Amino acid sequence: MSILVVGSVALDSVETPFGKVDEVLGGSGTYFSTSASFFTDVNLVAVVGEDFPQKHIDFLASRQVDLSGLSTAAGKTFRWSGSYGYDLNEANTLDTQLNVFASFCPKLPESYLNAEYVFLANIDPELQLDVLKQVVRPKVVACDTMNFWIDGKRDELIQTLKYVDILLINDGEVRQLADESNMIKAAKIVLAMGPKTLVVKRGEYGATMFTEHGVFSAPAYPLESVYDPTGAGDTFAGGFMGYLASVRDHSDAAMRQAIVFGSVMASFNVEDFSLDRMRSLEFDEVRDRYRKFQLLTTFNGID
Amino acid sequence: MSILVVGSVALDSVETPFGKVDEVLGGSGTYFSTSASFFTDVNLVAVVGEDFPQKHIDFLASRQVDLSGLSTAAGKTFRWSGSYGYDLNEANTLDTQLNVFASFCPKLPESYLNAEYVFLANIDPELQLDVLKQVVRPKVVACDTMNFWIDGKRDELIQTLKYVDILLINDGEVRQLADESNMIKAAKIVLAMGPKTLVVKRGEYGATMFTEHGVFSAPAYPLESVYDPTGAGDTFAGGFMGYLASVRDHSDAAMRQAIVFGSVMASFNVEDFSLDRMRSLEFDEVRDRYRKFQLLTTFNGID
Repeated sequence: MSILVVGSVALDSVETPFGKVDEVLGGSGTYFSTSASFFTDVNLVAVVGEDFPQKHIDFLASRQVDLSGLSTAAGKTFRWSGSYGYDLNEANTLDTQLNVFASFCPKLPESYLNAEYVFLANIDPELQLDVLKQVVRPKVVACDTMNFWIDGKRDELIQTLKYVDILLINDGEVRQLADESNMIKAAKIVLAMGPKTLVVKRGEYGATMFTEHGVFSAPAYPLESVYDPTGAGDTFAGGFMGYLASVRDHSDAAMRQAIVFGSVMASFNVEDFSLDRMRSLEFDEVRDRYRKFQLLTTFNGID
Repeated sequence: MSILVVGSVALDSVETPFGKVDEVLGGSGTYFSTSASFFTDVNLVAVVGEDFPQKHIDFLASRQVDLSGLSTAAGKTFRWSGSYGYDLNEANTLDTQLNVFASFCPKLPESYLNAEYVFLANIDPELQLDVLKQVVRPKVVACDTMNFWIDGKRDELIQTLKYVDILLINDGEVRQLADESNMIKAAKIVLAMGPKTLVVKRGEYGATMFTEHGVFSAPAYPLESVYDPTGAGDTFAGGFMGYLASVRDHSDAAMRQAIVFGSVMASFNVEDFSLDRMRSLEFDEVRDRYRKFQLLTTFNGID
């Protein structure tokens, strides 16, 4: 079962305490697609400028990502530049050049209209809703957003959320969206806005899922070498949705496994800059780390 | 199997966004003892002033805490006053009056000298070592410390750690003690100082245990009402050590269960000010929440 994702494809410049890279492959759509491609086919809707290097197109194609929805517009590709201190949970944005992304108006190719699994990466909530309207009858719709939209396009976001099954955002965004500091209370408020599932991404502290069935918490996989956290959230979402689509099951049990697969994919991605760790990653390594996750979290019951 | 604990007994004044209390029962020894008393017998070594209310003595006695090691000195009881904002992970100390605690020189009663399970709460590392020397042949020694000692009595602390099996501190303290920001690297450095087990307390993000066997991570129990986080770490330690002593087992499997019991006890304690939630807590509730912890963290394996 293939996934449709709408998001950004970007050229990132990133500095962390462990190194520095310039104009490398980035963007929410890129991270999501690459991660999900380990589990299922992916259809990517995004825009790049005329300066976008062919080698990045070739990489995405090598991951079997369908690029009929990737358009090239006159102008330059979206660029983001940021840095991280030793607290790798917090990115400092140094520069954002929207370029061709500023007038991005996603138009789905005919072949994408029957998509059953849809991921709306962090873009303008009006565009998210517009994409959703183009899809004939999606089965599972997941979405991301950020403080910029929660603050600046709150009404539009709330309108979009009515049609979303799974919202994946970080803990600060949950608190901001709900205007409530207690996470359980905030989760209830967000779930009342439409999504049946809220997945809270907590960086090095893992992820927590809230549904009508209750709460599931998974730690982050402990890593000795975190080089670059850029894209961790989208890589998480790619593993999460990729697994769900691959098993065509979104029961509570399947979503718990999906959270772990998302965590596993994110844990690999942060081990190197850009998507470089994904380039050499084998699915056997993914399965192996899933099993290590079980060792990390398992404890015996009591009588 | 009884536990020996050396720590503080205090009168706390605390303000959180949910209320304010004045001169209520507090102190690391108090929280630890009360929590551990749900699992095993506890022998408490501490000092109070002449102004210490009898009702607090009566409460500890009602929890079967042995108080032959609780001395009364001329002067006033140790007082701590602090506040918390909506980020309940961070206490702002408003005032500390050591009073009789300033000259605290723990002397173990004869009946405590054969202690097998020892918890050295957060006091001067020189006093911790002094206590340890008095115990004939302890089986499991656990200890806590804080930034004040890591910074101000580093050499003494490192000397004490040579004789400690289990160190329970928070993530900031681990990083400070190891002088390393990456948690896995920091844990290795700390384990090389003596302790065979490092338990990292992470407040609302749970706890992580590092041993030679690997890593175990448990989330915090998600709560809708967190009124007062004071004492959560000592309550955690009390549940942890109390369980270990009760089963006389400190295998990796038992320590994982102990982490969960510690988390359960801490999750109850923060539901009310001071130790008030402990006053009405029944062990059936503890067992019930342990089982809910399993539901919170369990996920299926993969083929």
